[in-house]
Amino acid sequence: MLVLSTTTLTPELQSKLTEAYQDLTFQFTENIEQAQPYLSEASIIITYGEDLTDKHIERATQLKWIMVISAGMDQMPFEAIKKRGIQVTNARGIHRIPMAEYAIAMFLQLYRKHEVFLDKQKARVWDQSVATEEISYRTMTIIGAGAIGEELARIAKAFHIKTIGVSNRGREKPYFDQIYQTKDTLIAIEEADFVVSILPSTSETKGFYQAEHFETMKSSAIFLNMGRGDAVEAETIIEALDQEQISHAVLDVFEQEPLPEDHPLWRHEKVTLTPHISGKSSNYLPRAMAIFEENLVSFLNEGQFTVNVIDPNRGY
Amino acid sequence: MLVLSTTTLTPELQSKLTEAYQDLTFQFTENIEQAQPYLSEASIIITYGEDLTDKHIERATQLKWIMVISAGMDQMPFEAIKKRGIQVTNARGIHRIPMAEYAIAMFLQLYRKHEVFLDKQKARVWDQSVATEEISYRTMTIIGAGAIGEELARIAKAFHIKTIGVSNRGREKPYFDQIYQTKDTLIAIEEADFVVSILPSTSETKGFYQAEHFETMKSSAIFLNMGRGDAVEAETIIEALDQEQISHAVLDVFEQEPLPEDHPLWRHEKVTLTPHISGKSSNYLPRAMAIFEENLVSFLNEGQFTVNVIDPNRGY
Repeated sequence: MLVLSTTTLTPELQSKLTEAYQDLTFQFTENIEQAQPYLSEASIIITYGEDLTDKHIERATQLKWIMVISAGMDQMPFEAIKKRGIQVTNARGIHRIPMAEYAIAMFLQLYRKHEVFLDKQKARVWDQSVATEEISYRTMTIIGAGAIGEELARIAKAFHIKTIGVSNRGREKPYFDQIYQTKDTLIAIEEADFVVSILPSTSETKGFYQAEHFETMKSSAIFLNMGRGDAVEAETIIEALDQEQISHAVLDVFEQEPLPEDHPLWRHEKVTLTPHISGKSSNYLPRAMAIFEENLVSFLNEGQFTVNVIDPNRGY
Repeated sequence: MLVLSTTTLTPELQSKLTEAYQDLTFQFTENIEQAQPYLSEASIIITYGEDLTDKHIERATQLKWIMVISAGMDQMPFEAIKKRGIQVTNARGIHRIPMAEYAIAMFLQLYRKHEVFLDKQKARVWDQSVATEEISYRTMTIIGAGAIGEELARIAKAFHIKTIGVSNRGREKPYFDQIYQTKDTLIAIEEADFVVSILPSTSETKGFYQAEHFETMKSSAIFLNMGRGDAVEAETIIEALDQEQISHAVLDVFEQEPLPEDHPLWRHEKVTLTPHISGKSSNYLPRAMAIFEENLVSFLNEGQFTVNVIDPNRGY
């Protein structure tokens, strides 16, 4: 049985797999082009999920299982996959720790004026008059209260932060002091010092945040988007900042990525931006492979999976 | 009964006190010079503790209680205070939250490469190749495991960080996975990714960290000092960094403060420094006044204090 990887795995991860599953054949490639010659024999494909097309699925006549080692499934050829009854699993949950850390790190950076102190150090200026704030005992509203939001809320509670969640059904969740349904988002963001968007990209979340959302927020609020960039138009954010409806925006995701070099967001003094890296981590691949192995063992023994099975009809 | 403040309190805090304690007379000044004319009548003095001399104590013939609204008592004229039987309380514990946040914020800033991303934003460069690390699941050793250390350990546990403490007696404490006695410091720092010094300035802690400490630490370790600067000589830290015995130093305190403009620490590429502000917070004065009021009520009613009484013989 051939396991084909269309993305670079470290030598350590490769030998860990080949040694642990000696009955299987592994073919490690660096991209889908290199993987082409092996498609027809592959039973299992390991991929980031952005490289597979209908044609690849067609050629992979032995294919039974695609392990997508990311969480976003936007670009998967689900129609072709469904027709063939190929199973799909992903690495859902893998971004939980780095993304929760990202949000806390960014709020600390802003409240504790890290950029100012870095500049003062460069200028060798001892200035104790810089006003710093505490993130403790603030209020955080997390819109899209799934696995990542729950992890963030859990850490926020250690800082005694009041946590408010927004989810489709508005059902109670651990680590959230209050949960609202999506229709009550405006109420949920009213008192927040930190508004965190972790909305995925779906037809309902496109352009989710409108002017009224920012009008409702506190003028001291920080808006942080680490979900998907199409949840809000850049113009809406810039308008809200320029009108002083909110104090700052932290953006890791954008309508267009990479963000064009001439985009006004780059140089807006009230914007801190990062290049869609909130979920990045040096632990990423080892963690993804741990998920893969958990499913591989149950797949080999019982022909089924234990975690993160994707419904091709829903795409998640 | 006159309450004399030798430091600026906000108008809000002033009117809160005058309204709540109408039987008392309050004199709010901005420094000890302005306070001079009122010393002879003052029963209670509110001070940061760095302005009082023997002469002031001598002149303050009515003085019964000094409320020091900081935690460091290094510069208090304890001999004169003792002779007169004046009572002293301080604001111990007040730095707990901002200092715990400081340490977490700094480790996140370094592990998540905030400085690099701030520079990339300025240059409008979209670079996803910057390698970021997680602070979660690391190991932190806190030397001087008092109230601040315990607060830091509590938050560190939310990040699943293994917490090791060093204290004089080495007694078990909440939020610490292990506690060592001071004599076993070398064992305690051996496996730490983060070494945090919160040692106060006493005769035993002067020059506490020697070359052997840094030789023992992991080469990837970050050393953070937010206790007192005289716990380690700058040369020792620079040597450890240059010899790659540790990877980075975060320094908020120094042997000499302000740090002289020509000091090599300012521009060392492996040093992040701040001007002794880790304990700063916009909540500082309100919190100090809350402690003062707690003691004021019991002092007025029962002639004694409920919290933070200082033994003038020990100075803490």
